[in-house]
Amino acid sequence: MDRRSFLKTTALGSSAAAATALAAPAYAQGKRTLTMVTSWPRGFAVLDDAASYMEQMVGEMSDGQLTIEKKAPGELVGALEVFDAVSSGQADMYHSADYYFIGQHPGYAYFTAVPFGGTAQELTNWYYHGGGEELHDELGQIFNLKGLLAGNSGSQSGGWFRNEINSAADFNGLKFRMPGLGGKVLGKLGASVQNIPGGELYQALSSGALDGLEWVGPMADERAGFQEVAKVYYTAGFHEPGSGLAASVNLDVWNELTPAQQAIMRNASMATTHYQLAETLANNGAALARLQSQGVKTLQFSDDVWDAFGQASAEVMDENMNDELFANIRGSFEESLATSASWINKSDGYYVQQRVRVLGG
Amino acid sequence: MDRRSFLKTTALGSSAAAATALAAPAYAQGKRTLTMVTSWPRGFAVLDDAASYMEQMVGEMSDGQLTIEKKAPGELVGALEVFDAVSSGQADMYHSADYYFIGQHPGYAYFTAVPFGGTAQELTNWYYHGGGEELHDELGQIFNLKGLLAGNSGSQSGGWFRNEINSAADFNGLKFRMPGLGGKVLGKLGASVQNIPGGELYQALSSGALDGLEWVGPMADERAGFQEVAKVYYTAGFHEPGSGLAASVNLDVWNELTPAQQAIMRNASMATTHYQLAETLANNGAALARLQSQGVKTLQFSDDVWDAFGQASAEVMDENMNDELFANIRGSFEESLATSASWINKSDGYYVQQRVRVLGG
Repeated sequence: MDRRSFLKTTALGSSAAAATALAAPAYAQGKRTLTMVTSWPRGFAVLDDAASYMEQMVGEMSDGQLTIEKKAPGELVGALEVFDAVSSGQADMYHSADYYFIGQHPGYAYFTAVPFGGTAQELTNWYYHGGGEELHDELGQIFNLKGLLAGNSGSQSGGWFRNEINSAADFNGLKFRMPGLGGKVLGKLGASVQNIPGGELYQALSSGALDGLEWVGPMADERAGFQEVAKVYYTAGFHEPGSGLAASVNLDVWNELTPAQQAIMRNASMATTHYQLAETLANNGAALARLQSQGVKTLQFSDDVWDAFGQASAEVMDENMNDELFANIRGSFEESLATSASWINKSDGYYVQQRVRVLGG
Repeated sequence: MDRRSFLKTTALGSSAAAATALAAPAYAQGKRTLTMVTSWPRGFAVLDDAASYMEQMVGEMSDGQLTIEKKAPGELVGALEVFDAVSSGQADMYHSADYYFIGQHPGYAYFTAVPFGGTAQELTNWYYHGGGEELHDELGQIFNLKGLLAGNSGSQSGGWFRNEINSAADFNGLKFRMPGLGGKVLGKLGASVQNIPGGELYQALSSGALDGLEWVGPMADERAGFQEVAKVYYTAGFHEPGSGLAASVNLDVWNELTPAQQAIMRNASMATTHYQLAETLANNGAALARLQSQGVKTLQFSDDVWDAFGQASAEVMDENMNDELFANIRGSFEESLATSASWINKSDGYYVQQRVRVLGG
């Protein structure tokens, strides 16, 4: 090394050190970036909206000291590989829907939605004030995860079909996409059920690989373009009355965060649900009207079909009861739901009925 | 001063200075405490729960750099004086319900709840995704306030009465507590309506100064002890289907906060609503069962009474329409509500009806 390059290197080295000393006081030594793998293509309405809000708010609230770097499917791992990636430490956290991981443990269904389960509000009541979060953590201990709920896509529509469903028998042989325990229910009715990531659904429906599918609701479904290839849309569904999204963190990573950073993450996750669910519900009505103007026919399943959903759902839930933790989660959830609903039906429920009766609409 | 006490003082002084220097690196120079005056006695269920959650989370997320010091009514100003105190800069922020301040501007009703208005979810949809927050800020400009919603007490019960309400005529001459535009509606029906702070209601009902009142819902009402002095409880009400709580900040104070501190305040306010509303709804069912076991009779108003509420509500809303900002706020709110409801009634609403039909409950 000649003297000139030696000086240059030294100068660079020392000026870099000086810059660091100036820009980074003691508290900045904890500056950290969390790699977040997601199950959603970038820009996917509702789902990526939630992930993006969480990413942005953690950075803003921590003044850039704790940041989230979001990775879409394929950038680090596949859409449905995020759970194992975070469990193993390959990534720091994921944003997904936990019922994609009922293969890892069936109890994960409850942290998204279960057939005939709770609305978004009822899920929130249970999660923070009925033992849900603690059970999410108990499940997380098995897989080295700290669970957080961050987002909710609301009551999922009954789905897109090429033809009307006139009886439960019409599900027999239908190639249909529905994840979680809801998919197992349709399996009882004879459907050929597949769990395909959101980013691949339009192609599967177009090509005939699927006869029908459920995705989210009008805002997300319109963006995905399903109205171009199917024209029958059932607005209410039995399978996911309020689907929580999860932003779960590798437990070792979580334990390394400071108390303030953990508080930012936990409150950011709550604010994400609050902000994004409202966005979805504020936009679904207008999206539904646009879908109808494009020739989509909106329907409700008949009482007979709902009865068949109810019977098959009870069978599916009971099949998992030999797992003690599943049974504990189910018991806790159902107790909370019954208590919540006993008031909500008499207050909000009765009020909305009267509002519709008095004002119309 | 003798030498000994002089040395002692000096030693204390310098050691305190040294401790400060050690404990407070450069970034802590922005350390700030916001004085928050509230309308709720300490420990008041639901309302003070929301204020306390906000206080705690801002401190935790900011690692103690931004703290809130909560003042109950009478500690700095009275329960209903908080708005003027923050507007004038006597306090930094308040936690209250903005419809207490319809005397300052009738538009403030919409940031708590209005007769035949939105549920908690519908209010949230409008606030963050239908123009509500911007209109809150527009009102705030008049009074030097930055509005934040932090908490929601849900659908307010119809209220406590000594005797059953068999027709709208039974409101004639009734001494009843109901704030906001709802109170003006009962005034149309002939009630003598008073707005009395929550901490004074039990005494007013016991003494006969009031014939009846509405406060919040089972959890808060039970804690206040109204079941001891009235036995007729209407579970659904027309007047506040989802009452937002406000944590508004003096605008000069808000503008002095850093972007990170503003992000913490705004997200803390959302997390407060998310966490506290769920707590309220998770506990109302069990509280209602306890009230019933103490001899409280729960009822719903008849359709005729609801029709009278509807007609009087329309009159009250129309009376304020000569104020342009009120008219803008009402128009924005009603447009958002109609869009939200057009989907929610077809999804959540229809689902809950089917859940009740299929499973009972």
